[in-house]
Amino acid sequence: MTNQSGVLYKITTFCDSHGPAIGVVIDGCPPQMKLDLDRIQADLNRRKPGQSHLTTSRQESDQIEVLSGLFEGYTTGTPLTFIIRQEDQKSHHYDSVKDLFRPGHADKTYYARFGIRDHRGGGRASARETAARVIAASVARQYLSDQYGISVLGWVDRVAHLKAHVEPEQITFDQVESNPVRCPDQDMAKQMETLILEVKKAGDTVGGVVGCIGKNIPEGWGSPVFDKLEADLAKACLSLPACKGFEIGSGFEGTYLRGSAHNDQWVMTNQGAQYQSNHAGGTLGGISTGQSLVIRTAFKPVSTHFLTQSTVNKAGELVEFKNEGRHDPCVLARAVVLVESAMLLTLMDHALRTRSIR
Amino acid sequence: MTNQSGVLYKITTFCDSHGPAIGVVIDGCPPQMKLDLDRIQADLNRRKPGQSHLTTSRQESDQIEVLSGLFEGYTTGTPLTFIIRQEDQKSHHYDSVKDLFRPGHADKTYYARFGIRDHRGGGRASARETAARVIAASVARQYLSDQYGISVLGWVDRVAHLKAHVEPEQITFDQVESNPVRCPDQDMAKQMETLILEVKKAGDTVGGVVGCIGKNIPEGWGSPVFDKLEADLAKACLSLPACKGFEIGSGFEGTYLRGSAHNDQWVMTNQGAQYQSNHAGGTLGGISTGQSLVIRTAFKPVSTHFLTQSTVNKAGELVEFKNEGRHDPCVLARAVVLVESAMLLTLMDHALRTRSIR
Amino acid sequence: MTNQSGVLYKITTFCDSHGPAIGVVIDGCPPQMKLDLDRIQADLNRRKPGQSHLTTSRQESDQIEVLSGLFEGYTTGTPLTFIIRQEDQKSHHYDSVKDLFRPGHADKTYYARFGIRDHRGGGRASARETAARVIAASVARQYLSDQYGISVLGWVDRVAHLKAHVEPEQITFDQVESNPVRCPDQDMAKQMETLILEVKKAGDTVGGVVGCIGKNIPEGWGSPVFDKLEADLAKACLSLPACKGFEIGSGFEGTYLRGSAHNDQWVMTNQGAQYQSNHAGGTLGGISTGQSLVIRTAFKPVSTHFLTQSTVNKAGELVEFKNEGRHDPCVLARAVVLVESAMLLTLMDHALRTRSIR
Amino acid sequence: MTNQSGVLYKITTFCDSHGPAIGVVIDGCPPQMKLDLDRIQADLNRRKPGQSHLTTSRQESDQIEVLSGLFEGYTTGTPLTFIIRQEDQKSHHYDSVKDLFRPGHADKTYYARFGIRDHRGGGRASARETAARVIAASVARQYLSDQYGISVLGWVDRVAHLKAHVEPEQITFDQVESNPVRCPDQDMAKQMETLILEVKKAGDTVGGVVGCIGKNIPEGWGSPVFDKLEADLAKACLSLPACKGFEIGSGFEGTYLRGSAHNDQWVMTNQGAQYQSNHAGGTLGGISTGQSLVIRTAFKPVSTHFLTQSTVNKAGELVEFKNEGRHDPCVLARAVVLVESAMLLTLMDHALRTRSIR
Repeated sequence: MTNQSGVLYKITTFCDSHGPAIGVVIDGCPPQMKLDLDRIQADLNRRKPGQSHLTTSRQESDQIEVLSGLFEGYTTGTPLTFIIRQEDQKSHHYDSVKDLFRPGHADKTYYARFGIRDHRGGGRASARETAARVIAASVARQYLSDQYGISVLGWVDRVAHLKAHVEPEQITFDQVESNPVRCPDQDMAKQMETLILEVKKAGDTVGGVVGCIGKNIPEGWGSPVFDKLEADLAKACLSLPACKGFEIGSGFEGTYLRGSAHNDQWVMTNQGAQYQSNHAGGTLGGISTGQSLVIRTAFKPVSTHFLTQSTVNKAGELVEFKNEGRHDPCVLARAVVLVESAMLLTLMDHALRTRSIR
Repeated sequence: MTNQSGVLYKITTFCDSHGPAIGVVIDGCPPQMKLDLDRIQADLNRRKPGQSHLTTSRQESDQIEVLSGLFEGYTTGTPLTFIIRQEDQKSHHYDSVKDLFRPGHADKTYYARFGIRDHRGGGRASARETAARVIAASVARQYLSDQYGISVLGWVDRVAHLKAHVEPEQITFDQVESNPVRCPDQDMAKQMETLILEVKKAGDTVGGVVGCIGKNIPEGWGSPVFDKLEADLAKACLSLPACKGFEIGSGFEGTYLRGSAHNDQWVMTNQGAQYQSNHAGGTLGGISTGQSLVIRTAFKPVSTHFLTQSTVNKAGELVEFKNEGRHDPCVLARAVVLVESAMLLTLMDHALRTRSIR
Repeated sequence: MTNQSGVLYKITTFCDSHGPAIGVVIDGCPPQMKLDLDRIQADLNRRKPGQSHLTTSRQESDQIEVLSGLFEGYTTGTPLTFIIRQEDQKSHHYDSVKDLFRPGHADKTYYARFGIRDHRGGGRASARETAARVIAASVARQYLSDQYGISVLGWVDRVAHLKAHVEPEQITFDQVESNPVRCPDQDMAKQMETLILEVKKAGDTVGGVVGCIGKNIPEGWGSPVFDKLEADLAKACLSLPACKGFEIGSGFEGTYLRGSAHNDQWVMTNQGAQYQSNHAGGTLGGISTGQSLVIRTAFKPVSTHFLTQSTVNKAGELVEFKNEGRHDPCVLARAVVLVESAMLLTLMDHALRTRSIR
Repeated sequence: MTNQSGVLYKITTFCDSHGPAIGVVIDGCPPQMKLDLDRIQADLNRRKPGQSHLTTSRQESDQIEVLSGLFEGYTTGTPLTFIIRQEDQKSHHYDSVKDLFRPGHADKTYYARFGIRDHRGGGRASARETAARVIAASVARQYLSDQYGISVLGWVDRVAHLKAHVEPEQITFDQVESNPVRCPDQDMAKQMETLILEVKKAGDTVGGVVGCIGKNIPEGWGSPVFDKLEADLAKACLSLPACKGFEIGSGFEGTYLRGSAHNDQWVMTNQGAQYQSNHAGGTLGGISTGQSLVIRTAFKPVSTHFLTQSTVNKAGELVEFKNEGRHDPCVLARAVVLVESAMLLTLMDHALRTRSIR
């Protein structure tokens, strides 16, 4: 109910930050897919920490292991289960937070919710859990790509006040991957990198915006009313750690336009009648238009900085607190893969749902 | 699957814009509630068109009728069903759009999805459907208010470039309801009103931002991972017609801050240790903090304006098109009730879910 | 959650026995179906009371009314809603049971569950609710018949000790409908009729067994593990009022056989290799074999008889009680349509589910 | 959707008979439970093969391993995941069935459903999967016992024609466990044992009936209409491999009674007013009465016997076939634990559901 996502491509993740393994069960994976485990590992590697001097030095090999659902390299239509054995956990780094609640974290709320919490590494609230989503999304990526030619690509659009100048439709995977910030605007990427290192040195953290585009999505995917494509996308994004905002198409900026300027009209081209613009961002009334799906997501600055903070402990007393351990000053580069995953999982679910009732 | 929302407070709406009736079935309404039908009617009246010279002159009496679930004024725990008989439908206004697809509407996408569409008034894609949600939300409002003292209040925060100057915690229901724009900043409300009338005269439309605050929500409501409170809120909002963006707490603005400034620290007060700020917007890790829930939603300018537009028809030909009929130049005042409903339905569902597993 | 059934062909029913209307919302009905409302009314008429001297004299016209989802006679893929306005309710017949709990009924358990109950006609626990299921099942019947040539036919197999001698594969609709008992064995039907009238005269009631067969079901429908076709069938049947048992294929009798006799082997025929028998009853491992689906269901004798009974009242005191009003001495003839509905709804849901993931 | 069960105590199992591991994720396990892993292992050991000369000699150590959800011995409210590493698999025993479909098995139907099948040990259709359910049920058993004093006990009621003479309310765990057949009637147990050995010698198999009783279940658990307690029980049982029938309370036998004899009346006792009988079997209208829950389930004779059978291969040709390997001549003793699990999982889900909406 809470640790699951999707109606027909349903995933269940399990993970405690410092537990023996994290994993995901995919219930509803189409059968007869030849699964490329290397592509999954590659997606996972894009998410993992320790990829550059900008991210945490926590080393996680994140080697996937298949527990069920694969037979001679093909999916069988039965639950497809992956786990990652956990390594390199420095649980003692968390001893100091056992009895207090870190600001900006879910420590206090989990304790209120469940009356118990695994304080080591944030327990279930840890962003470690997203590795499980990336795996399931990577399986979806293969399916959507092979069956429909769909591609999904995320990028860092802004770090603090540093905004990339990009045209979503033109961004390439290589541009994104060519720098540790995952910003396709190479000049801005350098400035972002400099900023992040400065902030890291100061023991502080930054946030920003991640964009994501999905191409070649057939017209007619999605559902009316509650499970609109944009609604499920928004939910998938807001369920990512540290995400505080979501936009599709023109988003908040579009609210400055008049209706006559905002509506995407049609124009005749050599390829026939086509949309003239894409303020909609790829959906109308919750259903895909056939244009690219374009979203933007806000990620707050990382809560784990290294400056002294005031907070409360279990006894309700005010205490001073300072983080220890290894943490990213900026998660945006890694969040790129998470936002892609959110879009991939949403599309995959609606691909199957649309097929079922049509 | 698509016409339903909620896990334990599950609602199913049904509505065709020009059909004989619209309605909602609430499955999971707690028993033994003394239901005040007048309060439901009052919420519904805030949503309905024709409330002022700013909204469409379409008259809808929107009288609720209870079909099941009520016994001697009390809920029985069995499905609570409401319908509204439809009136004042000018279906002939839509004859001209029978074979073409209106820009900014779901006409073409529904046709792609289902291969058939009820063109009259937008069919199922019509915002008429939201009346059904308002009813279910109003029942939830009574429950949340009576059981927990929770209040939920929305307001118009911005119309096009006109931004209200308000402090969410201070806004009152009377301020919101004292002008037809539903903007608690009375000076700005006047400017908004002027703008909307100008835009209406020009045959055009405007969009903007609706804010909403929920107070007295107990700490510890919500779920980890996928069904985070903010994720379900985002979904509920993005499932509203014309909604293009969602923020919680600091939202997109918060991404300009450093982590040290963004984290909500604690301070000692006369009432004991308290949060010093509410950048989180009322949740951490998907679970309520006990602070107010504060969200903001972007509504695109209304798609139905009265200027000539280029679009395509069923034959794929480019055609010129101009809307007829009665339509709002700005839906924000009415959207206030919808955003409140989105928050109320989400809170109600999580109230029951939190109670079940604790 | 409780008033819903189905994953993709999802129905929600609402009904209070003596409320203003009962109804059903079908969420997931395929679009572009030309719906024959007369066929639905005909199915409904087979369920309704007052069809013969064997059933209750309560008159219900049970006229269906469509509230949404139909456009120019075709389904639109949006929620399809039906209601039946209630008539001929003699609520005063229930005044005497307001404060006591009728034996064999859900009076006491509902009161324990919800702390409130609508005592008139059993409230939500009334078999009136099944009319709503019959409507949804009848829509499914049209779809399954039109798309796949599937037929579903129930019959009364036994009344108390009177067992019909029939071969399920040979039973015809006309045989079933040719007598008020709905038993295709005409001789036995007469004996059953005599028995029922005797029992009625004695103020008592009888139970029995209803069989049902589904033909032309494609091989490969259903799901592994939890949502096996037989599991969903069992649930659908046991959710019918008064149903106490379910069997598929060889059922309880088959447990007397050895494995070598029970396994359905294959044999060469003029039409190629075929199953030699159908002990399985149409499924293996939860998935349809392509053979006929054959089930049997036990219905307890009607709880509402007219002899004096000992029971308790709300105060916990022992009281004597005698039913008033109009009630069937035997519901089996009407239950035939309910068991058909259980099978139809299950098949319809799995038709859509199988199509989605394959 | 298919590999999951439960609404609030939701379990997802994964298992390929000869895969690297089988497992279960429990989503919705209450937090703060002190979990006794030895009790889980003990329940699992009751299910596993190789317990006596009556069962298959396949050795499975079935050692559980916890992957998530446990912190210092207590559940955290986050997903509780168990796996069992697989051992002692003789996959070559299944080489001969790679291209043919075993009678009585799901080989052909899975192939029709998915277009691919893992032929080794039946793949996902293997009864191995039930080990995962037993684990989840054993967690539920601890909760239901600790919180409510509920006990659930199954027994072998009949093997072929050999019927135990027992009074469900009187059966004890020790009686059941005192013989390898798990029949509390010790004399009959001996006859059953003799029969099973004879049948085994003949290369054949037998089926029978398993009973199960749940005690101390509070009044008022369950749901109206579709998710009746008996409906969910029936589904849980029919989802067990080889199960062909289900009864609650008086079941099929009860249909021979008149209503006046079947209704459970009340009588005054020293402990106050009480039910005089339990024909209902513990539920009325889908909701628990407070009396014991009594069910009976039919298990067909094991499909894997060692006599020659006619079947078809992938090419559609008729072929002769004979099983190899190690298989139980009678699964009833092991099925006892599975039927207990079906009841435990159903009760656990409804315990949480009832608590959420009341």
